Amino acid sequence: MILSSLLTSVGINLALCFLFFTLYSILRKQPGNITVYAPRLVAQNKSEQTSQFNIERLLPSAGWVKRAWDPTEEDLLTLLGLDAVVFMRIFIFSLKVFAVATVMGIIILLPINFLGTQLTDDSDLVNKSLDSFSISNVNDGSNWLWVHFCAVYIFTGVVCYFLYYEYRHISEMIINCFYSSKPLPEQFTVLVRNIPTSNGSSIGEKVESFFTEFYPSTYLTHAVVHKTRKLQNLNKEAEKLSKKLAKLRSNSAALRKYRRKGPFGLIGPKVDLLDHYQNKMEKLEEHMRLELSRVAGAEVPAAFVSFKSRYGAATITHNQQRTNPTEWVTEQAPEPRDVHWPFFSDSFLQRWFSTIFVVAACVAITILFLIPVVIVQSLANLSQLETWFPFLKGILEIAFVSQVITGYLPSLILQWFLMLMPPVMITLSAVQGYIAFSQIQISACIKMLWFTIWNIFFANVLSGSALYRVDVFLEPKNIPKVLAEAVPGQASFFISYVVTSGWTSLSSEVFRLIPLFWSFTTKYLCRKDPNDFTVPANPYHCEIPRLLFFGLLGITYFFLAPLILPFLLIYYFMGYIVYRNQLLNVYAIKYEMNGKFWPIVHTSMIFSLVLMHIIAIGIFGLKGLPIASGLLIPLPVLTLLFSLYCHKRFLALFRAYPAECLIKKDRADVNDPSINEFFDSLTTAYQDPSLTRSLYSSATDTDTSPLLATD
Amino acid sequence: MILSSLLTSVGINLALCFLFFTLYSILRKQPGNITVYAPRLVAQNKSEQTSQFNIERLLPSAGWVKRAWDPTEEDLLTLLGLDAVVFMRIFIFSLKVFAVATVMGIIILLPINFLGTQLTDDSDLVNKSLDSFSISNVNDGSNWLWVHFCAVYIFTGVVCYFLYYEYRHISEMIINCFYSSKPLPEQFTVLVRNIPTSNGSSIGEKVESFFTEFYPSTYLTHAVVHKTRKLQNLNKEAEKLSKKLAKLRSNSAALRKYRRKGPFGLIGPKVDLLDHYQNKMEKLEEHMRLELSRVAGAEVPAAFVSFKSRYGAATITHNQQRTNPTEWVTEQAPEPRDVHWPFFSDSFLQRWFSTIFVVAACVAITILFLIPVVIVQSLANLSQLETWFPFLKGILEIAFVSQVITGYLPSLILQWFLMLMPPVMITLSAVQGYIAFSQIQISACIKMLWFTIWNIFFANVLSGSALYRVDVFLEPKNIPKVLAEAVPGQASFFISYVVTSGWTSLSSEVFRLIPLFWSFTTKYLCRKDPNDFTVPANPYHCEIPRLLFFGLLGITYFFLAPLILPFLLIYYFMGYIVYRNQLLNVYAIKYEMNGKFWPIVHTSMIFSLVLMHIIAIGIFGLKGLPIASGLLIPLPVLTLLFSLYCHKRFLALFRAYPAECLIKKDRADVNDPSINEFFDSLTTAYQDPSLTRSLYSSATDTDTSPLLATD
Repeated sequence: MILSSLLTSVGINLALCFLFFTLYSILRKQPGNITVYAPRLVAQNKSEQTSQFNIERLLPSAGWVKRAWDPTEEDLLTLLGLDAVVFMRIFIFSLKVFAVATVMGIIILLPINFLGTQLTDDSDLVNKSLDSFSISNVNDGSNWLWVHFCAVYIFTGVVCYFLYYEYRHISEMIINCFYSSKPLPEQFTVLVRNIPTSNGSSIGEKVESFFTEFYPSTYLTHAVVHKTRKLQNLNKEAEKLSKKLAKLRSNSAALRKYRRKGPFGLIGPKVDLLDHYQNKMEKLEEHMRLELSRVAGAEVPAAFVSFKSRYGAATITHNQQRTNPTEWVTEQAPEPRDVHWPFFSDSFLQRWFSTIFVVAACVAITILFLIPVVIVQSLANLSQLETWFPFLKGILEIAFVSQVITGYLPSLILQWFLMLMPPVMITLSAVQGYIAFSQIQISACIKMLWFTIWNIFFANVLSGSALYRVDVFLEPKNIPKVLAEAVPGQASFFISYVVTSGWTSLSSEVFRLIPLFWSFTTKYLCRKDPNDFTVPANPYHCEIPRLLFFGLLGITYFFLAPLILPFLLIYYFMGYIVYRNQLLNVYAIKYEMNGKFWPIVHTSMIFSLVLMHIIAIGIFGLKGLPIASGLLIPLPVLTLLFSLYCHKRFLALFRAYPAECLIKKDRADVNDPSINEFFDSLTTAYQDPSLTRSLYSSATDTDTSPLLATD
Repeated sequence: MILSSLLTSVGINLALCFLFFTLYSILRKQPGNITVYAPRLVAQNKSEQTSQFNIERLLPSAGWVKRAWDPTEEDLLTLLGLDAVVFMRIFIFSLKVFAVATVMGIIILLPINFLGTQLTDDSDLVNKSLDSFSISNVNDGSNWLWVHFCAVYIFTGVVCYFLYYEYRHISEMIINCFYSSKPLPEQFTVLVRNIPTSNGSSIGEKVESFFTEFYPSTYLTHAVVHKTRKLQNLNKEAEKLSKKLAKLRSNSAALRKYRRKGPFGLIGPKVDLLDHYQNKMEKLEEHMRLELSRVAGAEVPAAFVSFKSRYGAATITHNQQRTNPTEWVTEQAPEPRDVHWPFFSDSFLQRWFSTIFVVAACVAITILFLIPVVIVQSLANLSQLETWFPFLKGILEIAFVSQVITGYLPSLILQWFLMLMPPVMITLSAVQGYIAFSQIQISACIKMLWFTIWNIFFANVLSGSALYRVDVFLEPKNIPKVLAEAVPGQASFFISYVVTSGWTSLSSEVFRLIPLFWSFTTKYLCRKDPNDFTVPANPYHCEIPRLLFFGLLGITYFFLAPLILPFLLIYYFMGYIVYRNQLLNVYAIKYEMNGKFWPIVHTSMIFSLVLMHIIAIGIFGLKGLPIASGLLIPLPVLTLLFSLYCHKRFLALFRAYPAECLIKKDRADVNDPSINEFFDSLTTAYQDPSLTRSLYSSATDTDTSPLLATD
């Protein structure tokens, strides 16, 4: 790609950004759209809705940017919880890192690269290849390369410093949030699974007798999980029917009539639709009543067991209970809203098969995704396109068209294909058998991250030299050389990839108007009313992998092609503003993940750093500076040791609270007058919602209520 | 190697076995040797010693075999503890597995191999190469290979069944031993490390205040660890001196005089040696008193904290205590006798460097060990030896000499070199920074096992095809082929290797007479009186790796060259008898490892099985039966899944007792009248022995005793 292509791309993207910014500013002010663009405020009755028409409504304005900027971190924490703050801190971390990187890259490295004469590119500035701005242009064996060498060391130090700082900050926040939290059911509750079944006594009786025998002083109550998948489906049907009935009741009697088709295609008598659906509803209710009584007997060998103290619950989580460690398996209970109920119905064998299926599916998707990658690679290579489609020759020779095709289209196509992946990954993770939505999300996030790194970074980089050379990774000695040969050449592609991402965050905000667009990505998390536009959960599984992938690009290309850095900085800055806004107005946080995303961010950054080091070792070797290569070898080792230390120092807090905190918090509770009320509420906290909902829908029927009592 | 070489080797070994058996039978009956051959009985005053001379004493007898055979498993458990029983069960397991293997191998596979005509070896039976008895002799593509195929599947099933059975049996034993044990200090004690140091208060005060604040109901007492390395050295010196003094006091006054050398080489006045050494002793005692007072202030940031209940101690082990997980690190305390006190003096940095040193040393030893391997390989190749040393030509042409050299010497040299390794591995593991002897032993056992597998198995196998082709393991696809080409060719070498091992177990029993021989391997575990011939610890680190390596040989060669199987069976049988005897008469078990060796045995057997599968996949490919190769692929996967299941099912018990057991045992204690006495004893249970010993040696000095009180 040449500089003018990049400029074309930047131009198109700036125009698009401006367009979307304007659209968003106008659209969000329309009163009809308030449920779409600020559903959180509507839900909380906080929006100052006005139906009066004024001209201002049609003019774009930037007031929302200021309003998004105003709240402090403490405000965000109180308003939106820990996850939102951690998410924003990922942006802040990236902004800090890439601000340093941009200063170093643009002021020091870029001029050195540009003044090199390795690539004999005599064209004028706008027609210069982007490679002239990369390390490829520095002369082999030049002493200027030592500047790059120092930059790698300094930049690694900077990233590590910020990583440590963030890790510490976030773990402090976790502790503070814990201390300031009111008593929460999940703090007092343990999920016990694989309770052995025998004919003698029910699961409930077993749980009761085990915990009263061994933990008489701390045991409080329990809730056995039931097989409710069928009931859930009936519930959904009943909900649809009751909506239909409500609508019909508001219609006039005449409108409700319809002519039923008789036998042999004859026209039958007219029927009142209300009667028809009421009959149907009665039948359904009968069915549900039967199902409810069936469910009462159909226990899953799992139970949520609540205790009188946090420390009591924690010790039971950490200790093996019975001599057979595969029975009575204990783990921290997720938040009640976070429980993925359908999962409990699956048997061990079903879970086993679904895991195998998920692995196979991931492999298949990874291979299939090579098709768009190959298409993109051929687009970047115009002459090949001309050979394949000779009739395009005339069109391709127009400068602007060729610039759009090489500089813009390839990365856009990849972006679109990649946007299809998050829901796929969520579905796969949901199938895999996690018991909490948060676990599904984290698993999907990791899947998505590796998928992006592998299929966008490695597939593009390696297809440049030889299509999909997986075998490179089987010869560890050659990896630095192969990467050093292939990675710099793809700099221009990734620059344009970053540039085209500029408006996607904004566009997804605008496209909220089209419900299909965003419900597609969120419906897997929570089936909900299609008229509710709040994003129900914390769907960071699509955004965080992208952020981290950009971090990977920025870090690996930092000393190779610093031209990428300002675009990344702009991207992070725009993302920061927009997300402070898909957060303050849109999110309705349903459950907390306690910042569990951060360790993924940390590991991914460390991976990026080590990748940069490996490429650097290869580059300095190729550039005739083997001493620099040798002197770089300690750097990845030190980085990995640093990461090990960080995880050892902080990771435990992301998994469980220390005894000190639990005991202190428990003691504070003793003086809390509302604690007994809370303990009472624990008996119904872990109730399968389908059981509660079925009571609601068949409210006339009172004999089902005993089913809800904990047995 | 040809059959007659093997027969020569078997002959020599049988003769040696008989010789050692006779020697042992006679030597052990001599009254003067009773401290050597039955030190355990002497220590327990159980030996029926008779000084009367009778002719029977000079005749070999087999009564000891019967006596070794008599005790049941329960007797062994009571007499010698769990470790000894688990050790014997490894033999029983091997005997079972190889009994099945021998029946299958000798009755079914060996005839099939021998009747093949692939190797055109027309020599008569005694001159036939051993390869004629191996799978190499089966014709390519022959349907008889399907018998081998079935044998691999059946044998894998048999081994897995026995593995599961043993794992279950041993974990049941662990639980039973726990229930029947009297209260032990380690069950009630937690080792707390990395206690942060600050100027304000001492470590002891910190521990006291932390545990009384957070665990007031279960906390009992604690013992802070002190820096005693210097005191240990002084103690040793004092012990030597006091022995000398005791000897001098028994001598006459005249003998004690010696003429001191004056200045300028002149002869000085005569001095009483007793006075001289008593002066020295007084000075040393003064020095020790100073050191003791210094030690009292020199606390290590670690403490043994004891609790009133086992469950209390266990919960503290499993929970993270403080917000910083790198401080107040808790772990199960080892048995008091098992504690490796010198280690505590090391700082974190020292430990870090010693770990790096150990890794480097292991690599260096592995590379250096290639020298004997290469020598052995050249010995097996007579013609090369003749080229190198032409003057040997005459001697080498004598049939018997050449048979001894090819069939006997190579494996003997390797055995000898390998016998040097266990003390090296123990030293390396001791340096690495473990806090318990049992941990050192387990680490040395694993090191030794991998060293044996790598340097005896892989180095021999791969040097046959191309010297030390490490790079094979970087191309996973080629591993089955390379191994299938190389492994069968080394069958005869490993058969002779097993054969020569026959008498080593016996010989090491006989060689107990030469103190150097065995003290060399044990002195690293416990510095002790040179006149005490009991084996102080459980030095399975030399025997178990050999047993497991033979298991690997037996399993991998099971279908390749079944001729190895009967020799293995004999080896295990002899070992079983001899060890039932180094156990009943010799061992004085100092600490229990609770059968922690079994998971290593299990993993090693699974490794051997998978190795066999990989070789089998390669062999069937080479032999023109690719369908069989394909059909074998599920087998390693299933085996690994089986292993995963076993570890998931049983491993947790080897690490910590389940809550159920702890609570039951704690409740049983309530009715135990001696429990308060036991709690009192806990205050001094974890006392550094060098502090106790220094009191003893300077017994006249009473003002040091307060130092022993827990602070």
